[in-house]
Amino acid sequence: MIQEIYFEDYQIGDTRQTLGRTITEADIVLHAGHTGDFFPHHMDAQWCKTQPFKQRIAHGTLTFAVGVGMTATLINPVAMTYGYERLRFPNPVHIGDTINVKVEITEKRDHERKPEFGFVTERLTVTKQDGSVVLVCDHLLLANKKA
Amino acid sequence: MIQEIYFEDYQIGDTRQTLGRTITEADIVLHAGHTGDFFPHHMDAQWCKTQPFKQRIAHGTLTFAVGVGMTATLINPVAMTYGYERLRFPNPVHIGDTINVKVEITEKRDHERKPEFGFVTERLTVTKQDGSVVLVCDHLLLANKKA
Amino acid sequence: MIQEIYFEDYQIGDTRQTLGRTITEADIVLHAGHTGDFFPHHMDAQWCKTQPFKQRIAHGTLTFAVGVGMTATLINPVAMTYGYERLRFPNPVHIGDTINVKVEITEKRDHERKPEFGFVTERLTVTKQDGSVVLVCDHLLLANKKA
Amino acid sequence: MIQEIYFEDYQIGDTRQTLGRTITEADIVLHAGHTGDFFPHHMDAQWCKTQPFKQRIAHGTLTFAVGVGMTATLINPVAMTYGYERLRFPNPVHIGDTINVKVEITEKRDHERKPEFGFVTERLTVTKQDGSVVLVCDHLLLANKKA
Amino acid sequence: MIQEIYFEDYQIGDTRQTLGRTITEADIVLHAGHTGDFFPHHMDAQWCKTQPFKQRIAHGTLTFAVGVGMTATLINPVAMTYGYERLRFPNPVHIGDTINVKVEITEKRDHERKPEFGFVTERLTVTKQDGSVVLVCDHLLLANKKA
Amino acid sequence: MIQEIYFEDYQIGDTRQTLGRTITEADIVLHAGHTGDFFPHHMDAQWCKTQPFKQRIAHGTLTFAVGVGMTATLINPVAMTYGYERLRFPNPVHIGDTINVKVEITEKRDHERKPEFGFVTERLTVTKQDGSVVLVCDHLLLANKKA
Repeated sequence: MIQEIYFEDYQIGDTRQTLGRTITEADIVLHAGHTGDFFPHHMDAQWCKTQPFKQRIAHGTLTFAVGVGMTATLINPVAMTYGYERLRFPNPVHIGDTINVKVEITEKRDHERKPEFGFVTERLTVTKQDGSVVLVCDHLLLANKKA
Repeated sequence: MIQEIYFEDYQIGDTRQTLGRTITEADIVLHAGHTGDFFPHHMDAQWCKTQPFKQRIAHGTLTFAVGVGMTATLINPVAMTYGYERLRFPNPVHIGDTINVKVEITEKRDHERKPEFGFVTERLTVTKQDGSVVLVCDHLLLANKKA
Repeated sequence: MIQEIYFEDYQIGDTRQTLGRTITEADIVLHAGHTGDFFPHHMDAQWCKTQPFKQRIAHGTLTFAVGVGMTATLINPVAMTYGYERLRFPNPVHIGDTINVKVEITEKRDHERKPEFGFVTERLTVTKQDGSVVLVCDHLLLANKKA
Repeated sequence: MIQEIYFEDYQIGDTRQTLGRTITEADIVLHAGHTGDFFPHHMDAQWCKTQPFKQRIAHGTLTFAVGVGMTATLINPVAMTYGYERLRFPNPVHIGDTINVKVEITEKRDHERKPEFGFVTERLTVTKQDGSVVLVCDHLLLANKKA
Repeated sequence: MIQEIYFEDYQIGDTRQTLGRTITEADIVLHAGHTGDFFPHHMDAQWCKTQPFKQRIAHGTLTFAVGVGMTATLINPVAMTYGYERLRFPNPVHIGDTINVKVEITEKRDHERKPEFGFVTERLTVTKQDGSVVLVCDHLLLANKKA
Repeated sequence: MIQEIYFEDYQIGDTRQTLGRTITEADIVLHAGHTGDFFPHHMDAQWCKTQPFKQRIAHGTLTFAVGVGMTATLINPVAMTYGYERLRFPNPVHIGDTINVKVEITEKRDHERKPEFGFVTERLTVTKQDGSVVLVCDHLLLANKKA
């Protein structure tokens, strides 16, 4: 869906929730193949048994890329990604975990030099089925102002 | 390769360079399929012709996940990823662009509460064949101290 | 997005349009690998040069699966797919073609034996950038009635 | 294998049976990524537990595309796909189900305007290991006549 | 297709030819991801320009795995793969090359200790569109004898 | 990593060991799709139950391609693959098995006609978690001499 959302339209405290998605062994295999990261933490079930976490863990970049992708349901032609801040992985994602993403508008500020733009911060919080947080980051949007 | 690198071993200013990798149309198709982000910026060559950037662009999460993956050649058992900071995409990656990643140690500091750990910042700079920067971010490592 | 749309809510003549998507060589390679159909019509560029169509063509099942997938943006908990009718491929899809899907409500009728349900026909028309139709079919929905 | 089979060669009642194939979690993940359909019916194991069907179900387009692909073992240069009719999904395919396809010639008729062609209907019946039917459709072939 | 072919049935000099298949950029990307071999010979178009071969080359293991796969059209329940010998890659496969495989029975001999088996050698010769050979190897089959 | 290793530098008896990798159902599905080999030995869990090996087995070409890929961690610009010899599969790889590869220098000899080159044989031995050998082959390298 395409919807124009201007800087003025974003309201601090607004939230939306994505659908859920189960992270599978296939996702980890595909992510390793896509990125070239075949570290045993993700790929070697035998070695993982000897480690404190006992089983394979999803790549941090997987949780990030899939988590961001899960929010990609609405195209806003008057805003663009400026960057991401404070990306953290408080808990691991294991094979079979189901994740959901909450997006919350947490901050707005004017652009320092360009009065026709403002920055909007969306906080992405990815949780899994037991309620624990597996990823949190701030998505910085550069949004057009209405006038 | 597995190599123990302790907090004390990291030297500010040390750099390493990855091999190069050409980002292909297949990578973008696979990344869309992996993440579920089928926005026309990445998937609709006709629509892109009508936009200022004229051609399809790689997902930001693709450049990040592949760029980080390109650095995954050395397993350090005494350090772990704590997070990422200040992730920016100064220039777009198009189909056929070849990227390289430079990793530079830019900062070290003690952990505030746990004296046996310190934080090490690796700056990742992803450039493409024309020398322009397509991604920059700070990778924060939590590293064990030797004693 | 989740939205309840009952039998009574569907209006004959209502249409919606999807985003566009460029069908790539990677899509054809992936579809062959997914389905096991490696016929030379899809996979052998040399042989295709000797045929009337001169170049590789996408599998009909690819155009159908991707075309249907492009319409999957809205979850309606009170309707389900009953089947598809009159699936036709009037023109071929080649590598690099960009497709769009129009969905139109073309028919409604009561269920013969279950008064709480009705059938809704969505006509899917997949066109490519030159306006030619590459797939048409009728998607039959079994929809709940309101009362 | 390549074999010329003309309109006259098709015999009503002739059947052939494909090899079997187990539909895996990886197939569903790949199909979602290929088509862009990430509906929770296919991708969210937690949510599925709350539904009558209790577990993830394969996309209808997956069963169709894979089922048709399983029949693609013989290239007939004198016939082509005209379309598909009456596509139905009587029972769901779950992860781990093994499917087989039976192809039966069920109908033949002359082309209305082109005397050198005829229509042949192949009925595709996809069953799984417990004998239940998961897909049925009629594949309409346009076949050359011999003289 | 399933067909019983016993040791006695194989005739030295018998040949069969596969269909053709164009090796695409997507195949190389997928093979790198499948195997973890991201060497610049396959993945870095810029670096390849500085090398004698000027362009990316398919992995040897790709040509082997795909070439062998192209011959997998007939299941013989009374023979099994014993191994491969003298695998060579006389010329490179580049993106866009179309390959075909010829299978020729070149040798038969009794099993040294098990009189109910014999060894059959199939020579696989993979050529591309200009007629040059890109792979040759001997496939050693262990075949049942009839009595 | 890039490192020049000349013919003279290789020492018979030198060994190196790769990281481990668990072969998943997804790997087998992807390998079938990549190569076109959908034989029931790899793809039909029901049929496999009726066979002596009871469960699906990885393609021999999968074990070979992945095993060779696992050794691809060091680029040596002064040596190239000449071929492979005596490829054998003593035991099957099943879904969930974890493999490791040992590389041992087993032979060195001068090139017959080109005095500036020599042949180096690396024996690849792929084992799984129970210690059994699943693949062995000789990798023949053509290596430059120093002077």
